[in-house]
Amino acid sequence: MPNPRTVIIGGGFAGLSCAKALGGAPTDVTLIDQRNYHLFQPLLYQAATALLSPSEIAWPIRTLLRRYKNIQTLLGTVVGVDRAARVVHLEGRQSVPFDYLVVATGARHAYFGHDDWEAFAPGLKNLDDATDIRRKILLAFEQAEFEPDPAKRAALLTFVIIGGGPTGVELAGMIAELTRRTLPGEFRAFSPQSARVILVEANARILTTFTEPLSDFAVRSLADMGVEVLAGKAVTHIDAKGVVVGDEPIEAATVLWAAGVQASPAALWLHAASDRAGRVIVGPDLSIEAGIWVIGDTAAAQSEGKPVPGLAPAAKQQGKYVAAEIRRRLRGDAKPSAPFRYRNQGNLATVSRKAAIAEFPHLRLKGWIAWWLWGIAHIFFLIGARNRLAVALNWLWAHATGGRGARLITRHDEHGRSDQDDLRPSHRRH
Amino acid sequence: MPNPRTVIIGGGFAGLSCAKALGGAPTDVTLIDQRNYHLFQPLLYQAATALLSPSEIAWPIRTLLRRYKNIQTLLGTVVGVDRAARVVHLEGRQSVPFDYLVVATGARHAYFGHDDWEAFAPGLKNLDDATDIRRKILLAFEQAEFEPDPAKRAALLTFVIIGGGPTGVELAGMIAELTRRTLPGEFRAFSPQSARVILVEANARILTTFTEPLSDFAVRSLADMGVEVLAGKAVTHIDAKGVVVGDEPIEAATVLWAAGVQASPAALWLHAASDRAGRVIVGPDLSIEAGIWVIGDTAAAQSEGKPVPGLAPAAKQQGKYVAAEIRRRLRGDAKPSAPFRYRNQGNLATVSRKAAIAEFPHLRLKGWIAWWLWGIAHIFFLIGARNRLAVALNWLWAHATGGRGARLITRHDEHGRSDQDDLRPSHRRH
Repeated sequence: MPNPRTVIIGGGFAGLSCAKALGGAPTDVTLIDQRNYHLFQPLLYQAATALLSPSEIAWPIRTLLRRYKNIQTLLGTVVGVDRAARVVHLEGRQSVPFDYLVVATGARHAYFGHDDWEAFAPGLKNLDDATDIRRKILLAFEQAEFEPDPAKRAALLTFVIIGGGPTGVELAGMIAELTRRTLPGEFRAFSPQSARVILVEANARILTTFTEPLSDFAVRSLADMGVEVLAGKAVTHIDAKGVVVGDEPIEAATVLWAAGVQASPAALWLHAASDRAGRVIVGPDLSIEAGIWVIGDTAAAQSEGKPVPGLAPAAKQQGKYVAAEIRRRLRGDAKPSAPFRYRNQGNLATVSRKAAIAEFPHLRLKGWIAWWLWGIAHIFFLIGARNRLAVALNWLWAHATGGRGARLITRHDEHGRSDQDDLRPSHRRH
Repeated sequence: MPNPRTVIIGGGFAGLSCAKALGGAPTDVTLIDQRNYHLFQPLLYQAATALLSPSEIAWPIRTLLRRYKNIQTLLGTVVGVDRAARVVHLEGRQSVPFDYLVVATGARHAYFGHDDWEAFAPGLKNLDDATDIRRKILLAFEQAEFEPDPAKRAALLTFVIIGGGPTGVELAGMIAELTRRTLPGEFRAFSPQSARVILVEANARILTTFTEPLSDFAVRSLADMGVEVLAGKAVTHIDAKGVVVGDEPIEAATVLWAAGVQASPAALWLHAASDRAGRVIVGPDLSIEAGIWVIGDTAAAQSEGKPVPGLAPAAKQQGKYVAAEIRRRLRGDAKPSAPFRYRNQGNLATVSRKAAIAEFPHLRLKGWIAWWLWGIAHIFFLIGARNRLAVALNWLWAHATGGRGARLITRHDEHGRSDQDDLRPSHRRH
């Protein structure tokens, strides 16, 4: 009799940890992802601000799973799941049948009904977003070097980040460092230090998942770096000229969106019940029916009556829990499932190269000690010895010199290849 | 009296070395490039084959020139030069006036009248080309993992490189290593070692700029790695199915073009005489008239009656020569110019991680000793201490493990941002 087939959709923290925990189990596993890489999303903002290069925070999924001979990796886009027929439908490919299905397709950004804002205020969820944002930020400075009109130049040098969660705070901090440490001395028509970095948060305070003293500390650290924090103010309009915060228009060439996420459309494919953010409502064992689980940011999961937070450790714990559930079934163990329980491993956010905040069940840290804890934890969890070393070197270099390694503007136009003639000198004729 | 104005178009080896040699001179220098980075083009093929990441072989031009306060860097696209009015016209920007002009806009690939081939056989000249080619190569393997038809799978696993110059040889060698060392074990539906890598050269032998024993050695090294070398055979047709070499059709999903280059259209802007490859014909002092020089791959320059080769050292020597000529004029020295003389610094090409060839006026090397010479020379000439270290680490890693650091497929579609829903799990909600 052939082995039962397990299909995992999504190679992020949840899906990848589930796949690894099924390595060597008596089931044929297929992991399907729309991209060929696992992304270390907690450092994505550093790729968007030119500190790290994309290949330092991403790794081919099939390399990560190569040693598990029972696992096949497929690059494909899921367009539907037939729960009755037990098959996953892919775009332009044959369908993939399953006995067990794990859906871990994550989330994307949401504009709260203002989808037209996306064109002016891109969000940050994948590597393409990161290189787009990097290009946008760097091009603003390049254009400012040409701009004779002081008002237009000021708009080019104004950066508005919407959303005071960890990603918004980290982006604002990194852009401020770019203007204060990396770029000074490189332009002749203006001083990069004159750039404005504005962080807008609709809630009364930023970093609401942390306690108030830590969030106050973050505001002070940001202010020290020159970031203007506008808390308790909602963005009411975004267009090509900038944003309107409350009634106040702010002209800005660069507006970034870090304010909201929406689960992937898995609830639609699965015809499953979902909450307002599009997350699939799952049972205490993270399933929606026998043999179909939804985990990670795609799921509205509960642990001991409280919602499970959208953090990497929570996603990994869910992946491992479901793998154990599948292994139990493969053994023929018919006992009812124990409910999933989230173990809080703490919450970390970084503000600048000198300040971070960290909150654990019985401990709060801030300042440089939290920064080092943050740095060590992130390097430790980065996949692959080489990536760890490369990131560590990059950080030490930037820390010491203020330089950045990934300040390349690629793809000038919106449509892939530039069709302008190439002005680059050639090394050799072929 | 204000300083005379020097404009340099192009920030490759020729333009950058000219700019640096003018640092601190009593002239206001403007360096204009269409991209914000200087590219270390000799290693571009390694970025195209996922060994190095783009930011390891490119560096922001304005960072390289930051310490020279008399130099301004502008990101812009030149559309014309008015020799009489002494101004450079830019796309969508104010024009830039000059007293001295240095044109160093390089070359791009040429398809010998078959421009329709470009869509099927991309060339390699800039970082966008490199990431496009990287995506194309990696996607062929991903598609093969899905493909049930053996003939179609074989076509997906056939890689044809057209042009047996250094770039073609280097690309073929790297793709062979990818299939023989990096990818084995990662696919379940086929063996990556079964991939065919075919190098086609119309001349009777490959690497014609080297002597015959070295070119024979390269052929044997390529054969050892599994590369099929078809020398003395011309490509007569290229389409979406593959290539026709002589009369023989070869089905191949990936065809790469390394067969010909054409100078940038500078001759057209300048209304200057050019040769068949579009290169501007310059005098012995590299000028086309008093105060206007054309250097690097854009120029058909002669040294002691012989054409100057299209190599990085030749481009740098030309840049320094013109800078010295400008400094002489700034001093008011009215003596006639001594003609430009090219000093041959040797010629190097690499075939695999164990074999390279090197040719100097009185010395020829091949095998691992040439490889180490090649590696040390390239690391030495790479700009920036951090880049040197990162590249060295990457090479040592790949040498030891066969792994590659930059195997990311970004931008699935041809038009920039993918508009498919993002299946990536999120780390946190904002």
